[in-house]
Amino acid sequence: QGPPRKAPPIENKLLCSLEDIYKGTTKKMKITREILDHSGKTMSLNEILTIDVKPGWKKGTKITFPEKGNEHPNTIPADIIFVIDEKPHNVFTREGNDLIVTQKISLAEALAGCTVNLTTLDGRHLTVVINNVVHPEYEEVVPREGMPLPKDPTKKGNLRIKFNIKFPTRLTSDQKAGMKKVLAG
Amino acid sequence: QGPPRKAPPIENKLLCSLEDIYKGTTKKMKITREILDHSGKTMSLNEILTIDVKPGWKKGTKITFPEKGNEHPNTIPADIIFVIDEKPHNVFTREGNDLIVTQKISLAEALAGCTVNLTTLDGRHLTVVINNVVHPEYEEVVPREGMPLPKDPTKKGNLRIKFNIKFPTRLTSDQKAGMKKVLAG
Repeated sequence: QGPPRKAPPIENKLLCSLEDIYKGTTKKMKITREILDHSGKTMSLNEILTIDVKPGWKKGTKITFPEKGNEHPNTIPADIIFVIDEKPHNVFTREGNDLIVTQKISLAEALAGCTVNLTTLDGRHLTVVINNVVHPEYEEVVPREGMPLPKDPTKKGNLRIKFNIKFPTRLTSDQKAGMKKVLAG
Repeated sequence: QGPPRKAPPIENKLLCSLEDIYKGTTKKMKITREILDHSGKTMSLNEILTIDVKPGWKKGTKITFPEKGNEHPNTIPADIIFVIDEKPHNVFTREGNDLIVTQKISLAEALAGCTVNLTTLDGRHLTVVINNVVHPEYEEVVPREGMPLPKDPTKKGNLRIKFNIKFPTRLTSDQKAGMKKVLAG
């Protein structure tokens, strides 16, 4: 028998909602592991591993619990590793520290102005008034309404509002003439 | 000395314009190769290789001239291979058998209608009248104005006209009110 070898690490995904990552949360993961008693007999043990998800953590962040795998004779138990992953969100997607939201608006709203109402990841109501002409590539940037920065959660990325402009499917000849006149004016 | 071995093939790009590929063309490629005379002495020889580019040939089509490489003792000369490649075109891009063109139009044209004037790859004037409302993802498909099909050049792919709609950068409040009224009407 040589020196004890260490079992290869065991990785598990830890799915977090954007709300969890925005605010930070504590996840308790129940694991069942085999341990050896002093006589060398195997017994099953339930354990709770506690993970402090910090605000702004990135997908892929790893949290390691050293040697929390099963115990086997002449082997060092494996490390248990949790890897942060993001649950898809209904409204927001994350790009680095920014949050992206796509808003569907009518052509009239794109041209004459509109108001975007959103609920932030911490449950606040946010009202953004757009007075600029919204073209298809337009992005309204709301500073500091993105994700917290992991190194300083008092600072935040941006919220970027993109637009999906719904054009009318058809226009009457009167409407066409009217559009021409207004846009030429 | 074993049996003669064949030298590995030599590949060259043959850049063709979309016009060349649309209409078909003949390319004459001058090569200089070393040959052995009957006494085994090396001499240089100029040769013209003629390539009949057929209408609709695809990028990556290979034309092989067997054993047109240099002659060396106890070696079979290499094959010379030309590989068709497309020169970027100012107006059209190719997607399979389709041609794509992106037309810049004003918002007024997108809404009230517009006319697209194009010169085809064989030099004809093409006028396409658009009466539909053009939204940012709108595509006007003109049948049989794409590239010829290699297997039957009397048949052709489609021409697909995409649009880049130039929105006004700003509108007066009168214009905004006017747009709202026309679009609501």
